[in-house]
Amino acid sequence: MTLKVGVIGTGMIGQDHIRRLTKVLSGVDVVAVNDIDVKRAASVAPGGAVVFETAGDLIRSETVEAVVICSWGPAHEAQLLDCIAAGKPVFCEKPLVTTAAAARRVIEAEVAFGRRLIQVGFMRRFDGDYRRLKAVIDSGSLGTPLTYRSVHRNASVPAGLYTSDMPLNDTLVHDADISRWLLSDEVKGVEVRLPRRSSRGGDLRDPTLVLLHLASGALVDVEISVNIAYGYDIRGEVSCENGVASLPERPSAVIRDQHGVRQRVPEDWRERFIDAYDQEFREWIAAAGQGTTTGPSTWDGYAATLVADAALRAAETGAFQPITMVAKPGLYDTAIAQAAE
Amino acid sequence: MTLKVGVIGTGMIGQDHIRRLTKVLSGVDVVAVNDIDVKRAASVAPGGAVVFETAGDLIRSETVEAVVICSWGPAHEAQLLDCIAAGKPVFCEKPLVTTAAAARRVIEAEVAFGRRLIQVGFMRRFDGDYRRLKAVIDSGSLGTPLTYRSVHRNASVPAGLYTSDMPLNDTLVHDADISRWLLSDEVKGVEVRLPRRSSRGGDLRDPTLVLLHLASGALVDVEISVNIAYGYDIRGEVSCENGVASLPERPSAVIRDQHGVRQRVPEDWRERFIDAYDQEFREWIAAAGQGTTTGPSTWDGYAATLVADAALRAAETGAFQPITMVAKPGLYDTAIAQAAE
Amino acid sequence: MTLKVGVIGTGMIGQDHIRRLTKVLSGVDVVAVNDIDVKRAASVAPGGAVVFETAGDLIRSETVEAVVICSWGPAHEAQLLDCIAAGKPVFCEKPLVTTAAAARRVIEAEVAFGRRLIQVGFMRRFDGDYRRLKAVIDSGSLGTPLTYRSVHRNASVPAGLYTSDMPLNDTLVHDADISRWLLSDEVKGVEVRLPRRSSRGGDLRDPTLVLLHLASGALVDVEISVNIAYGYDIRGEVSCENGVASLPERPSAVIRDQHGVRQRVPEDWRERFIDAYDQEFREWIAAAGQGTTTGPSTWDGYAATLVADAALRAAETGAFQPITMVAKPGLYDTAIAQAAE
Amino acid sequence: MTLKVGVIGTGMIGQDHIRRLTKVLSGVDVVAVNDIDVKRAASVAPGGAVVFETAGDLIRSETVEAVVICSWGPAHEAQLLDCIAAGKPVFCEKPLVTTAAAARRVIEAEVAFGRRLIQVGFMRRFDGDYRRLKAVIDSGSLGTPLTYRSVHRNASVPAGLYTSDMPLNDTLVHDADISRWLLSDEVKGVEVRLPRRSSRGGDLRDPTLVLLHLASGALVDVEISVNIAYGYDIRGEVSCENGVASLPERPSAVIRDQHGVRQRVPEDWRERFIDAYDQEFREWIAAAGQGTTTGPSTWDGYAATLVADAALRAAETGAFQPITMVAKPGLYDTAIAQAAE
Repeated sequence: MTLKVGVIGTGMIGQDHIRRLTKVLSGVDVVAVNDIDVKRAASVAPGGAVVFETAGDLIRSETVEAVVICSWGPAHEAQLLDCIAAGKPVFCEKPLVTTAAAARRVIEAEVAFGRRLIQVGFMRRFDGDYRRLKAVIDSGSLGTPLTYRSVHRNASVPAGLYTSDMPLNDTLVHDADISRWLLSDEVKGVEVRLPRRSSRGGDLRDPTLVLLHLASGALVDVEISVNIAYGYDIRGEVSCENGVASLPERPSAVIRDQHGVRQRVPEDWRERFIDAYDQEFREWIAAAGQGTTTGPSTWDGYAATLVADAALRAAETGAFQPITMVAKPGLYDTAIAQAAE
Repeated sequence: MTLKVGVIGTGMIGQDHIRRLTKVLSGVDVVAVNDIDVKRAASVAPGGAVVFETAGDLIRSETVEAVVICSWGPAHEAQLLDCIAAGKPVFCEKPLVTTAAAARRVIEAEVAFGRRLIQVGFMRRFDGDYRRLKAVIDSGSLGTPLTYRSVHRNASVPAGLYTSDMPLNDTLVHDADISRWLLSDEVKGVEVRLPRRSSRGGDLRDPTLVLLHLASGALVDVEISVNIAYGYDIRGEVSCENGVASLPERPSAVIRDQHGVRQRVPEDWRERFIDAYDQEFREWIAAAGQGTTTGPSTWDGYAATLVADAALRAAETGAFQPITMVAKPGLYDTAIAQAAE
Repeated sequence: MTLKVGVIGTGMIGQDHIRRLTKVLSGVDVVAVNDIDVKRAASVAPGGAVVFETAGDLIRSETVEAVVICSWGPAHEAQLLDCIAAGKPVFCEKPLVTTAAAARRVIEAEVAFGRRLIQVGFMRRFDGDYRRLKAVIDSGSLGTPLTYRSVHRNASVPAGLYTSDMPLNDTLVHDADISRWLLSDEVKGVEVRLPRRSSRGGDLRDPTLVLLHLASGALVDVEISVNIAYGYDIRGEVSCENGVASLPERPSAVIRDQHGVRQRVPEDWRERFIDAYDQEFREWIAAAGQGTTTGPSTWDGYAATLVADAALRAAETGAFQPITMVAKPGLYDTAIAQAAE
Repeated sequence: MTLKVGVIGTGMIGQDHIRRLTKVLSGVDVVAVNDIDVKRAASVAPGGAVVFETAGDLIRSETVEAVVICSWGPAHEAQLLDCIAAGKPVFCEKPLVTTAAAARRVIEAEVAFGRRLIQVGFMRRFDGDYRRLKAVIDSGSLGTPLTYRSVHRNASVPAGLYTSDMPLNDTLVHDADISRWLLSDEVKGVEVRLPRRSSRGGDLRDPTLVLLHLASGALVDVEISVNIAYGYDIRGEVSCENGVASLPERPSAVIRDQHGVRQRVPEDWRERFIDAYDQEFREWIAAAGQGTTTGPSTWDGYAATLVADAALRAAETGAFQPITMVAKPGLYDTAIAQAAE
């Protein structure tokens, strides 16, 4: 009943997932680790886990029943294809892959295998606030959704490391994925507008306004600010035909003092989404134990790649950039199994 | 000490202003009325007020010290020019005039006269919530404003009477004016995007998303929904370099019952802005008693006309529409005298 | 149509009411003033107002149609009786009088006169938030009210001037009056409990917890803190059989910055209740113009006096203190005419 | 590394804890169950668990490392003493025991054993909202706490089964324990006041107002309503010397529709405290693995028993009921190890 997992990539996020799999969650054991830095892999491997020299060896090992991929993006395609070849369920951190062509190759392999094996790390879909928001939309009580407002604010980003492309190819994918999921829709085109630049980020292009045109005609506008100082603030509001639903403020003691009536804003994504990360793996473990996956799929990773590419072109050209997807394989058509609370 | 006012136009809004001037506010008397429908004018004239056959006669009457214009838009230009010729302060309901050329002619006349005589009826600038919001922005504590989000939702509009142009040439002017005022900026270009259409309004183009490009580079996005059923909901949020400020929910008893924890949303603009209308006239009366006006000016009315025209073109063409204004006369350069609370 | 008013007492609150009556409100003129300090009266008298040597002369003056009493409490009884003798409507600041016996004498005189002439300065009844709260209760949608929580917090009180009796005989009267009004009930007994003392007020007895037992059995608990530093915070919550209603936060820009998501708390009672003071006089002027008064009555002033006396005894004895009122004259039985919004 | 647990009592709450221990939490196995209804025990025992005929046998079994007691209250004393005799950590659902004398006997046994073995099921201490509230108080930024307001509202209670004593001996214990914990204080006396009765509960005495007098002088007032229809609503507000802190509303989508701006209220305690129950066991498992317990102790269970007894007497007599505790053994003096977030 305990899922035996191998973890590929033991950097910061890999180590955090090892902690989660060994100390927080039940029904799972980390039995294998791999990293291009073998010493690092060895140093963070939990007791009893085997350190593999290559990702491929780990994936093919008989003791490994399911795989968690936390390596860097360019390595994902080969590792995912190996997992599919081995018929093993896999959790893959973002990005799924780094090009649309690679995404299509992974889709083809998974479709040929005939069963979903991949879950991509879009953790917002497992957050309670987002799930309750989706439940309201899906209930139909407010009518058809027409516009969605997604606000993505970071207190700060690492100077030098975070470049002007990253709001569009790194940050935006969360807003794009959650928009598609909340509205059960696809992105058909992207526009980018660049407002007055914040002086806080030096040359960094920030903030950014993105318009996502969805297949239904619904329009998503995304405000991305990555240096806004006051906190990590993720908000969303859906305007429907006869009402509006939005994410609540985060729960936090209501303080009345010299600064007014106030509540704390989360400091960063770890604080904001810690429960979502746990829940993401809880559901992955349950499905992987059945030899498959639910939650965000290869198709969703493919869509995210296309949006990021289109957004970069839109920023460069100033023009609307259409998105064309391949025909959606039936494998990804099944009703989304995730229960919204 | 009591300002003697003549009211031109005694339709719904004119009658409401007569009520306000005679029953609510101090330091003012309605001594004259005029309407193209003389019988209606006579029937709503307060005791002692003279009914004039023409607007011009009212404006030139020696007993009239200041004028309130509530006639229909196409009549405004001539009436405003008459007021300037007579040197009398005037409150003019929206729209100031109906074409940019007319607005320029009124500006020229007022500039030639040498003193501000006209206040335009942008009542939001007198609303306590907006004033407190502007005070936060102007304090500089949050840094430079970079984007502004303006949400304009009506529960419903009169079927048949409210046409698909009106979100852009009637409703949008409020958002445009308040954006210019809050951010102390000018609109330099307009884009319009049309999301999935609400089924509630038949053929009506609704909702509408508008992007206002401001001179500073700040970007305003406006969500207009005119048939959203649940109430009249006016919201605004300014994202600055290191913080965000927004309009609060309207005060209303917090009820905890079978529908949850909840507060009422205003039903319509009368309920929402009743205090702002009173305050608008309070300040007009004070300035008019000094022979001049403060608050939204002819220049602001001109700007609103240009935005409405550009928005209509933007909706038609789908393309960015630049706005070019004449050089701003010094008359309108003076620091805005309105105190923000 | 303009009510000619004489103002008795030209201290801080008297001057503020003169400002209100001459600069803010319509339909009223201040034609006479009086103060024991005649020089002060002369210095603050508006243009054209006569300065009277005695309160009695002012009250009896033919030019005075209605009276505003802002003198100190011990002078009120004689002045009120003079007003009744003169048949003139009067607005009387708190306290109505300083003893229950005096209150009964004023009641008897007013009843003998046969028409309400007195309005007491309980301004909270004119506050929009309280009126909307009462409207919810009176609608019956939440069922019978069973308990009420009244919170009365002052940022600070003047050291030395504000004594340990004053939470009970000065501050509490507002909570007692608003409780009676909101729940349409009478206070039948008082208990006082003294929590751990705040170190901020030196020897001052603060905070204070008061239980008001109402005739219906409903129980009111009042938290009074007069040195709580962070602001002037007035709150109220009614628990009914199947729901709860409470005062909202005050409207104020919602700021997101390094202190969290926050809204300002009012600084003092002037900021909090400025609109209520205006409305209080607006309604008094309207009724006084008809030769009578509405709003809080002599009976309400009498009730407040009894509660204050009982609360002081309760604090001293630690025991429940019953309140017995004389039979309520029919004059005060009429349905409350104040519209709740 | 996996804690082997035996569960005594397999009614509703016992079954829920078995689910939690086997399906939600890591590092724990249910290896034994017992119930006075052996068939029920057998039917809910997880795979591999042994069904014991008696609680004592389970407790003494070599395969059981720690015990969870979910039997009915009168059985707790003997079972707890057996656990202490066996030196096994135990989680005991409320009530710890049913009399103060029994509580003292368990304390004596645990003190004689020399190490804490018992954690009582006051799950609120593990709730994120309460922990963040306590962190604010403990930070000292608001000064010394002076009063606390605890509101405990149930949508409904089972007619007939929930009697008029239960607000005081069943419901109140949660408010009493959380008050003691939040303010790091002890209850020294209790008063009970009975407001107007709700018609929703027939003869049931409801609502109830309780005053808890704490050792520091801080005063707690508790509003208990058990039939208030609209939801399960738990609130708390601490008034300190220079500020106030309170529990936030529960996170839930903010909906704007015909009922206003609104958020859902939890339906019942399961929904409200589900995460707290999980966390409660997470921390118990961690400590039990070390052979001891943290969190609410036998001393806390003793205090709860005394408060319930005093509250019943206070309701009967209408008078203040003092509480006298035995000297606090050093075993319970250690700084509370629970981290507040």
